[in-house]
Amino acid sequence: MLTRTPATLDALLRDLPEAWTMRNEGGNSWSAFDVVGHLIHGERTDWIPRAKMILEFGENRAFEPFDRLAQERESRGKSLGDLLDEFTRARAENLTELKGLKLRPEDLERRGRHPSLGVVTLSELLATWAAHDLTHLHQISRIMAHQYREAVGPWSKFLGVMQCAGHSAAG
Amino acid sequence: MLTRTPATLDALLRDLPEAWTMRNEGGNSWSAFDVVGHLIHGERTDWIPRAKMILEFGENRAFEPFDRLAQERESRGKSLGDLLDEFTRARAENLTELKGLKLRPEDLERRGRHPSLGVVTLSELLATWAAHDLTHLHQISRIMAHQYREAVGPWSKFLGVMQCAGHSAAG
Repeated sequence: MLTRTPATLDALLRDLPEAWTMRNEGGNSWSAFDVVGHLIHGERTDWIPRAKMILEFGENRAFEPFDRLAQERESRGKSLGDLLDEFTRARAENLTELKGLKLRPEDLERRGRHPSLGVVTLSELLATWAAHDLTHLHQISRIMAHQYREAVGPWSKFLGVMQCAGHSAAG
Repeated sequence: MLTRTPATLDALLRDLPEAWTMRNEGGNSWSAFDVVGHLIHGERTDWIPRAKMILEFGENRAFEPFDRLAQERESRGKSLGDLLDEFTRARAENLTELKGLKLRPEDLERRGRHPSLGVVTLSELLATWAAHDLTHLHQISRIMAHQYREAVGPWSKFLGVMQCAGHSAAG
């Protein structure tokens, strides 16, 4: 599952008109472009660094909190194509690094400390890495559908995605 | 946008373990496999046939109601790979047919009759075709995330997709 997200986002988003990729759901909400930047930041600072912290420090040291606004700085001046390339590269590197950890089944039960959730296991962290991809694919499809909420006319009441209130992101 | 959905679903789903693709959200809900079957049925019976009805009959004849359970029959005995191939082929054929209609801007304002929504325009129908892809991508990401709701442990409260109640499909 983790290997697939870069290709999925590439097929969905690359070279699409900016009306789909740069618009958000109003206010401070994110565009698809912002979401891809957030996924890159997760690759750099969240999943593998936290897995290593669990292996090294266990419950003794809490993870760094995840910066949900980092992509505003880090994506500046880049194109969506740049971000999709960067995400593909970063994910591939992290999956190589994950293999390099040579985790044994019993390692998956090792415990770490989340700054707000408390004790979590390595297994939960790795499952969340995959589910985090899905939550953002869910969000991107909703952001894109939002751009068509007027265009579909009366059909909007049949389109579940148009009724989705959004539900915040993971960290 | 309409050209991209087959490749997006292919990248996301092909050859993924059945634990992701064949499980649903409980009860009579749909699996990712069911959703792809539903998208194929839409290609065969909904979008282009309705566009042609608008051009031919205008508001004088209501569309055939969309059969939301057709994929149960039509997908039987097929693999997910078969369905992804079939969807790719059907969508490509329909986009060729759409081009063949040589729609002029004024055609987009032509009106037809939906069996429950009443008067709709060709423009709304075509926008709904794209938004319908997005509502089902939204649904598939939610169905897949549902399979990990236990595995992510305490993180589930941070994952928006786990809070999404689902919202019905389009027709």
